[in-house]
Amino acid sequence: MSRGIPEATVARLPVYLRVLRELDSEGNDTVSSVHLAELAGVNAAKVRKDLSFLGSYGTRGVGYEVPYLIFQMSRALGLTHERGVVIAGAGHLGQALANYRGFSDRGFNIVAMIDVDPSKIGMKMSGVSVVGPEDVVDVVNAHPGCIVVIATPQSAAQAVADRAISAGVKSLLNFAPGVLTVPDDVRVRKVDLGLELQVLSFYAEQQERSSAGAKSA
Amino acid sequence: MSRGIPEATVARLPVYLRVLRELDSEGNDTVSSVHLAELAGVNAAKVRKDLSFLGSYGTRGVGYEVPYLIFQMSRALGLTHERGVVIAGAGHLGQALANYRGFSDRGFNIVAMIDVDPSKIGMKMSGVSVVGPEDVVDVVNAHPGCIVVIATPQSAAQAVADRAISAGVKSLLNFAPGVLTVPDDVRVRKVDLGLELQVLSFYAEQQERSSAGAKSA
Repeated sequence: MSRGIPEATVARLPVYLRVLRELDSEGNDTVSSVHLAELAGVNAAKVRKDLSFLGSYGTRGVGYEVPYLIFQMSRALGLTHERGVVIAGAGHLGQALANYRGFSDRGFNIVAMIDVDPSKIGMKMSGVSVVGPEDVVDVVNAHPGCIVVIATPQSAAQAVADRAISAGVKSLLNFAPGVLTVPDDVRVRKVDLGLELQVLSFYAEQQERSSAGAKSA
Repeated sequence: MSRGIPEATVARLPVYLRVLRELDSEGNDTVSSVHLAELAGVNAAKVRKDLSFLGSYGTRGVGYEVPYLIFQMSRALGLTHERGVVIAGAGHLGQALANYRGFSDRGFNIVAMIDVDPSKIGMKMSGVSVVGPEDVVDVVNAHPGCIVVIATPQSAAQAVADRAISAGVKSLLNFAPGVLTVPDDVRVRKVDLGLELQVLSFYAEQQERSSAGAKSA
């Protein structure tokens, strides 16, 4: 199913793609594995290995062609054609996601928001139609292969997932805290908004301890 | 500064911590490196290596003590005491973050939101006071070591970062697309809300290609 590309490599492809697009917008035609590695925050050997899974090997002394690599990566990630996205939960997070430029820029088409609040159903919010939970089946049938983004409170997340899965959805992106129980053929990815904050906290902590040490020395 | 813990290890600590808390809430006292690896989506050798940086080696045949590992990890990540967080941008994303349980649960105290909109300044939104950009210095001085979360449109992100840095902020969490230019002693982590969507898209794409192949065969 994944053509033998390791999961960790797949998770890095969007990072490479973001970096490559930045390089492209700055007018760079080629990039070395060392430079790409630096910008993506991994080591150069890993970059070369990862890109080899896409059939890209670069040219010694020149590096990789940026536009071609963008094309290859976009194709692997399925970004060369549109894919429907349904956002469950039309609260602040759901609306922030509906407004998020990084979705539509990458071929994701937000086809509907789902909410239980009767005052929201039938409205357009952030340019997207809000439908009720009973309309999920219709929305999913109209957009085969769509991804459902769960932006509800945790208490509603499992029920929303169950309903989406019954309607035939195979891919869920979960922003709610906690774990979802899903059948084997359904893929869930989790976004933990607090993760990077903890990484920053780690470094701030180290810095503060080392300056406290320097002061007392 | 980082006491020799590799950056990739630091980035995995919050993932381990999340898994460990789930195990703890389910009443597990110990966990093997193999099980922890499975839940965290890495391999067991990497888990053992990562935990050794914290001075944790586990016990053969028993594994690691969950509560002690949680304590060690929380301490390394600086989560055992409160740290201030300032959210720049009181739009949908800023308010979603202010409401996000995963922040306050982990010792992060959202001390203020900053916005340029006069109709928001002076209000409480999602329980957090909104102040104007000119108040950043006061807020930062009142909360030494605070982290600034940039949840503004991209067009405002660099100016917000510059102002925070002038006020003495050393840690920025950037949700806006695009790259921030900051001095060497300031650490920026980026959250790309579209990243995991692309990972799901990759697998959906593979699955669709393989079923298309199966049908045509």
